[in-house]
Amino acid sequence: MTTQEVATQLVALCSEGKFHEAIDALYADDIVSLEAGAPPGQSRESKGIAAIKGKAEWWAANHEVHSAAVEGPLVAGSHFAVTFKMDVTFKPTSARFSMEEIGIYKVVDGKIAYEEFFYNM
Amino acid sequence: MTTQEVATQLVALCSEGKFHEAIDALYADDIVSLEAGAPPGQSRESKGIAAIKGKAEWWAANHEVHSAAVEGPLVAGSHFAVTFKMDVTFKPTSARFSMEEIGIYKVVDGKIAYEEFFYNM
Repeated sequence: MTTQEVATQLVALCSEGKFHEAIDALYADDIVSLEAGAPPGQSRESKGIAAIKGKAEWWAANHEVHSAAVEGPLVAGSHFAVTFKMDVTFKPTSARFSMEEIGIYKVVDGKIAYEEFFYNM
Repeated sequence: MTTQEVATQLVALCSEGKFHEAIDALYADDIVSLEAGAPPGQSRESKGIAAIKGKAEWWAANHEVHSAAVEGPLVAGSHFAVTFKMDVTFKPTSARFSMEEIGIYKVVDGKIAYEEFFYNM
C-alpha cells in the first residue's frame, strides 16, 4: 500500500474506534512508538507489535470514550499526520477530560513502522 | 494568537515563499528547531532565533525554488502540522529534486516555540 492508502485506512478505522484492527492491519512487526512523555521511570518509546498492542489494550481498558474525532491525513512522501480529539473518562479516577493530539506516522514497505505523538503534558 | 491563527498565518506566508517574514512574525526568540537528520558532525537541533534565521538564509541562498505547495494546517491543542512539497535545484551541484516533508509546530504564548520536520533521509 502507498502512504496515502495506509493513511486513509488508519483514519477510517480509528474514526470507527477500531484501534486494535488498525494495529493488526497496518502496523509493522518492528513498529516503534514514541509518546510525548512518560511517567517517571518509564520510557517514552515502545518497540515491537506486542508492546504497542499492550499499550492499546491498557488504554482501552482504562478509558471510557464519550466522543472521538479523527482529522486528516496530511501526506508527504513516506510520512503522514493525523489529529485525534477525544472526550474521555479515565476510569481509575473517574476524571473526565478532553485530549487533542497529532500523530505522525512513517510508512515502510506498506506498513506503519514509526509513530510519534505530540500533545501537551 | 491562538494555535489556529498562528498556523493559518504560517501557511499563508510560506505559500507566498515568505519564509523570512514567517520567522520574524511568528517565531519565539528561544525557538528550537529539529531536522530529521544532519550531516556528519552537525546537530539535528538548532536553538534560538539567530540560528534559525541563519539556517533559513543558507537554505534560500543555496536553493532555487521552481514550485512550492503548502498544505494544512491540522491543529490539535498547542500543536499543528503542515506539509511542504517543493521542486528545487540545489545550486552548488545543480541537482534538481522534489522534497516532501511534514512540519510539526508547537505554539507557546502565541509564538512558535518548537518545530520538527519529518522526511526521508
